[in-house]
Amino acid sequence: MDDISETIHQIDALFHPESVAVVGVPRGLKTGRLFLMALQDQDFPGKIYPINPHMKEIDGLTVYPDIASITGQVDVAIVLVPSRHTLSVVEACVKKGVKGAVLFTSGYGEIGLEGLKLQQEIVRVARSGGMRLIGPNGMGLYAPASGLSFFPQLSRQAGNVALVSHSGSLANILGRMASGKGLYFSKAVSIGNECDLSCPDFINYFAQDTTVGVIGAYIEGVKEGPAFLAAIRNASLSKPVIIWKMGLTREGARAAASHTGALAGSAEIWDAVARQAGISSVHGFEAFIDALMAFSLLPDNVGRRMAIISGPGGLAVSAAEACSTAGLVMAELAAETRTELAGLVPPTGTSTANPIDVGLTASLDVKIYVESARRTAMDPGVDAMVVIGIGLDQETNEQYTRGILEVQKTTHKPFIMVGIPGFGEDIISRFCNAGVPFFDSAERAMQTYALVCRYQDWRRRVTTAVDHSGGVQ
Amino acid sequence: MDDISETIHQIDALFHPESVAVVGVPRGLKTGRLFLMALQDQDFPGKIYPINPHMKEIDGLTVYPDIASITGQVDVAIVLVPSRHTLSVVEACVKKGVKGAVLFTSGYGEIGLEGLKLQQEIVRVARSGGMRLIGPNGMGLYAPASGLSFFPQLSRQAGNVALVSHSGSLANILGRMASGKGLYFSKAVSIGNECDLSCPDFINYFAQDTTVGVIGAYIEGVKEGPAFLAAIRNASLSKPVIIWKMGLTREGARAAASHTGALAGSAEIWDAVARQAGISSVHGFEAFIDALMAFSLLPDNVGRRMAIISGPGGLAVSAAEACSTAGLVMAELAAETRTELAGLVPPTGTSTANPIDVGLTASLDVKIYVESARRTAMDPGVDAMVVIGIGLDQETNEQYTRGILEVQKTTHKPFIMVGIPGFGEDIISRFCNAGVPFFDSAERAMQTYALVCRYQDWRRRVTTAVDHSGGVQ
Repeated sequence: MDDISETIHQIDALFHPESVAVVGVPRGLKTGRLFLMALQDQDFPGKIYPINPHMKEIDGLTVYPDIASITGQVDVAIVLVPSRHTLSVVEACVKKGVKGAVLFTSGYGEIGLEGLKLQQEIVRVARSGGMRLIGPNGMGLYAPASGLSFFPQLSRQAGNVALVSHSGSLANILGRMASGKGLYFSKAVSIGNECDLSCPDFINYFAQDTTVGVIGAYIEGVKEGPAFLAAIRNASLSKPVIIWKMGLTREGARAAASHTGALAGSAEIWDAVARQAGISSVHGFEAFIDALMAFSLLPDNVGRRMAIISGPGGLAVSAAEACSTAGLVMAELAAETRTELAGLVPPTGTSTANPIDVGLTASLDVKIYVESARRTAMDPGVDAMVVIGIGLDQETNEQYTRGILEVQKTTHKPFIMVGIPGFGEDIISRFCNAGVPFFDSAERAMQTYALVCRYQDWRRRVTTAVDHSGGVQ
Repeated sequence: MDDISETIHQIDALFHPESVAVVGVPRGLKTGRLFLMALQDQDFPGKIYPINPHMKEIDGLTVYPDIASITGQVDVAIVLVPSRHTLSVVEACVKKGVKGAVLFTSGYGEIGLEGLKLQQEIVRVARSGGMRLIGPNGMGLYAPASGLSFFPQLSRQAGNVALVSHSGSLANILGRMASGKGLYFSKAVSIGNECDLSCPDFINYFAQDTTVGVIGAYIEGVKEGPAFLAAIRNASLSKPVIIWKMGLTREGARAAASHTGALAGSAEIWDAVARQAGISSVHGFEAFIDALMAFSLLPDNVGRRMAIISGPGGLAVSAAEACSTAGLVMAELAAETRTELAGLVPPTGTSTANPIDVGLTASLDVKIYVESARRTAMDPGVDAMVVIGIGLDQETNEQYTRGILEVQKTTHKPFIMVGIPGFGEDIISRFCNAGVPFFDSAERAMQTYALVCRYQDWRRRVTTAVDHSGGVQ
């Protein structure tokens, strides 16, 4: 077994522990307590061992004074003690045969030379005992299928998205908003300072994990350039890799250094690297979420010829503009489609040319939306549908949601929904959970859909090259 | 009185009518009916005259067979009849002494030569009788202080924003979302094909209207280049003008032509024009809303030195990056401020350098957010505060909202809030309605704030030039 395979094997064990120790669980409602609450919130099916020498019991669980006092096996330790105590805890973990530890606290490499030396010693001890480390200054593992989490209130439903993040809070936020956006995780890891297990290690792991369909990464800086590049390029051959990269400006780099001690690169280098490696590079929180959702929900082999249906005429126009700005194409509708649309859409203040402006009446009589969408989606010149609309009240919104979802199911065309302020969160969630991505604006919808097209084109090109030559160029 | 002053005078009358006729009010729940519902929804305090030869009464109002049968004065007529009947209605309005008519239906200039001829004849008849026209293919007037609206459910609260729009639906959507974003309108107009009253006419009117603090325009194409340029340049000398311009791509231009028959220009020309005229040019629906809100809420003379406070460390880093990308500056905190912050912020996993990472504990103990914000806002090196956070539950969110709003009030520094998914709509609304702009992401917050800075800088430069030379260069 080579190094990469061994690391993958070890990471897999950490994502599937049968027992977790929480070392240094605090008495009161301090941050550390959240880790225990998180495991309970996920109904972690294995054994939980809280450790604190000054306590006997917490939430009905026996508290142990130290790792050594636990009689059973401990697979994973979440270490919450201050950095000056971490070395002795890690030594105890190694003795106990713990497979891996998450080091939550900071005060190592990111604070200077003294901390760096301590960190190196901890890594030496762990590795010499065959134990792997996540962190320090990281929150560790979230994997709903295993009942693992680093924060309460994260979704318990598992999905096809994997996340590797220099920010625990970001992983946190994404795990919390899952059901609202149809964005469900297979696994996420908050890697912190990467003293041992690193970003490329997790990307390699996610690349071969069959439960993972999309890899997202929030990265403040790249520590091992060649390993990182190899990992993302290899991963993107089999599944989309979406990267939100920090530190592309001087201020961002400075903030990243103080946050996780990572070194940052320049925007130019990064853009070139991303392009060559088939990476979907995004800038900003919303773009990151949009991309994770769209890649998670949209099928393979989507096409660029878009048909737009809108009730608000102004939004039809702006969507057409956004389509072209994003590098997508406005579909040419067949004469037959336009004739049928003319029979559905009111004659005045509307348009049956693409973008199809179904007019304001459609908010009262939503079958205009629904049937126009059906006819248009049936046009062979249309690769994907963008529908911008809203009903006038709860009842018409309900008819709209049900109608569009039925048309999508019947016609098998990708549908992309664009909201209008006033759409309830519940409707957004219904579309996303039915596999239909929902965006807050046409601009974001088109930009994100174009990312999916670009990635699928890239992979087609590269994998064709592999087929012909037996290896990637 | 010159032409511009006369037009301003005439527009002012249309925004303050004492009586409105709705010509061609339909029997059932068709689009036209919404105009009547809109006036009733706003409690229009003047007289409403529905007109339809086949009805006697609607919603308790007497229905008149035609304009001539009304005994009292009619200030404004909303004309819903098909284009082939419009000429005779306009003739009747002129005879009756109506000051202005909104022509809602389409089928004129945007459908070709035949329609254009009809449109020209209608304009000739109206103008010869001293009557002004809005539209055709436009929804007309929204002015909550006058009880005027073109759609039900628009906010009844008046504010300082004015909007001129080629899209009625956009005006509609903005009017509906008002209270959620603290975005209240003084007046809005959906101008349609501009057969008579045009975009520059309304911009000139809004420029001199003291109830208007911000002018927004959604523009699909510019018909009268020199008049438009003169109007926006003149307006932006006294108040911010935010323009979302369509038709900058071939597809957008084509869609705009079929929507309102407007000719579109190129992106390059437009960008140069906007820069010279001090216009805040935005691209996209969300950017437009963000800008209207920020310009409406933020004070004059904001500065560029930003302090960022965040609970989620990753979002602190990305906000610092977004700050610099937007052309803003990360404030250098005074040593004293940092010392005081060190006493407030937990020691591990946090940072008291800007961006200030207050750590995850702050979601449990929100006074960490609030007091850190207070100390930082008191630093004379800080021009504006960006706060990114959330509580862990409803109670902590409530403390967070109240605390930050109190600090803003006490310190008088501009505050900009950035949400994290999971924030309730009600909290967003509370911040915005207290004059504190709230954004969905740090990227959008920084970009929008930078627009405000750029505009205020531009105006300072230009008005200084006026002071020194007695005229604008």
